[in-house]
Amino acid sequence: MLQVWALEGIPEVSPGDDLVTLIVAAAGTSLADGDIVVVTSKVVSKAEGRIVPADDREDAITSETVRVVASRETSPGHRTRIVENRLGIVAAAAGVDASNTPHGTVLLLPVDPDASARAIADGIRLARGVRVGVIITDTLGRAWREGQTDQAIGAAGVHVFEDLRGGTDAEGRPLSVTMPCVADEIASAADLVKGKASRLPVAVVRGRADLVGDLDLPGARAIVRPAERDMFHTGAEEAYSDGFAAGAASVS
Amino acid sequence: MLQVWALEGIPEVSPGDDLVTLIVAAAGTSLADGDIVVVTSKVVSKAEGRIVPADDREDAITSETVRVVASRETSPGHRTRIVENRLGIVAAAAGVDASNTPHGTVLLLPVDPDASARAIADGIRLARGVRVGVIITDTLGRAWREGQTDQAIGAAGVHVFEDLRGGTDAEGRPLSVTMPCVADEIASAADLVKGKASRLPVAVVRGRADLVGDLDLPGARAIVRPAERDMFHTGAEEAYSDGFAAGAASVS
Repeated sequence: MLQVWALEGIPEVSPGDDLVTLIVAAAGTSLADGDIVVVTSKVVSKAEGRIVPADDREDAITSETVRVVASRETSPGHRTRIVENRLGIVAAAAGVDASNTPHGTVLLLPVDPDASARAIADGIRLARGVRVGVIITDTLGRAWREGQTDQAIGAAGVHVFEDLRGGTDAEGRPLSVTMPCVADEIASAADLVKGKASRLPVAVVRGRADLVGDLDLPGARAIVRPAERDMFHTGAEEAYSDGFAAGAASVS
Repeated sequence: MLQVWALEGIPEVSPGDDLVTLIVAAAGTSLADGDIVVVTSKVVSKAEGRIVPADDREDAITSETVRVVASRETSPGHRTRIVENRLGIVAAAAGVDASNTPHGTVLLLPVDPDASARAIADGIRLARGVRVGVIITDTLGRAWREGQTDQAIGAAGVHVFEDLRGGTDAEGRPLSVTMPCVADEIASAADLVKGKASRLPVAVVRGRADLVGDLDLPGARAIVRPAERDMFHTGAEEAYSDGFAAGAASVS
């Protein structure tokens, strides 16, 4: 049985707030060994002071961007940019967030979400003496599918993949290519209780203690597929244009 | 509180088996109004007799394929084909499944997973007098991220999106582009209790009764983004090649 619930009583988070203190106070004595604490990146960004004026939004997106993957005019005068950001994550607007932010401001993603997760996990473990894992989430769009799901952008003390590649299925055949991204599945499960418009930024997932481990396990960075290994490293229109120019140049 | 558990006691499924009978027997009296029953597509395919000899795997992939999206030699002599299948779903090998299948066979996806979900939901509602939703899942890879997650390929009696687009965030600003794909999030949550190698093909998700509705709600087909609206409708290498040829032809 998996149980997932949101922590009540996390106040509005401001720069400099200590998330461990807020989470431990809200959780009381409810946390147990093997629990996975799932934290919305928004409150991590707020606590870390990753806030910039909304007027600087476009500049902020540009400075968070390593590479534009695709862009398209999605409404008159508005161009959606899908980019690879400095964390390697492919996201609309580089993950710069303008909803649920203090008026007139936008939020950048945490500088290093895996390090943020490690600090939170370490703090909770010390404060409560319980061995928890921590996942930091963002709401991300997908290729080929409408809508968004919450996915893991930071992790500590929890296996991000359930590696079945060495295992066999019930018929004894090797499960050669199966490597479930349990961190993303946990992020999605937690979103079902956190909600978007409400202020419930932290959830607890109980029932997969087998996934909880040492704080030096690989973080969510391991989920990012390097562009050179990705068949969709560039948008179709952009790749076509690059090819067109190269093809024309090859003849002339 | 969200609770997710796998149903014990579903036997090996064979062609012609009635999944409603098997699910109702395994669930006993445990199902309640508002529960969402999450069924692995593999057992739906088996029950519907969507089994072909393994020797015909490549032909099966070809016949399930509407359009090759991208392909790459992923190991010597083996080419992974990412295709759009006849359901509109972009998947490796068109969703043709060779793991956990009877020896010497492979499984095709259900002919119409939304119709399969509707039949199962209708059957459970009639048999038990409880208003449940049903989601049928497949294990799918993603662009940009390693590993797979379970996602919804069929749905009935459950909202596949939580539409917040008309709503406002906690600061009162419109949540203009946010449309969480709760069906995919529920599929992922259920995978955390079903496991891949074990024979637990059915899970129950309790705690989001607000998402359960009439059987004529849009199914999982609504999650599929039409290729013409998708910035990643073609693999980067394939689009580059198409562009190169067009560019060369434009000059000569």
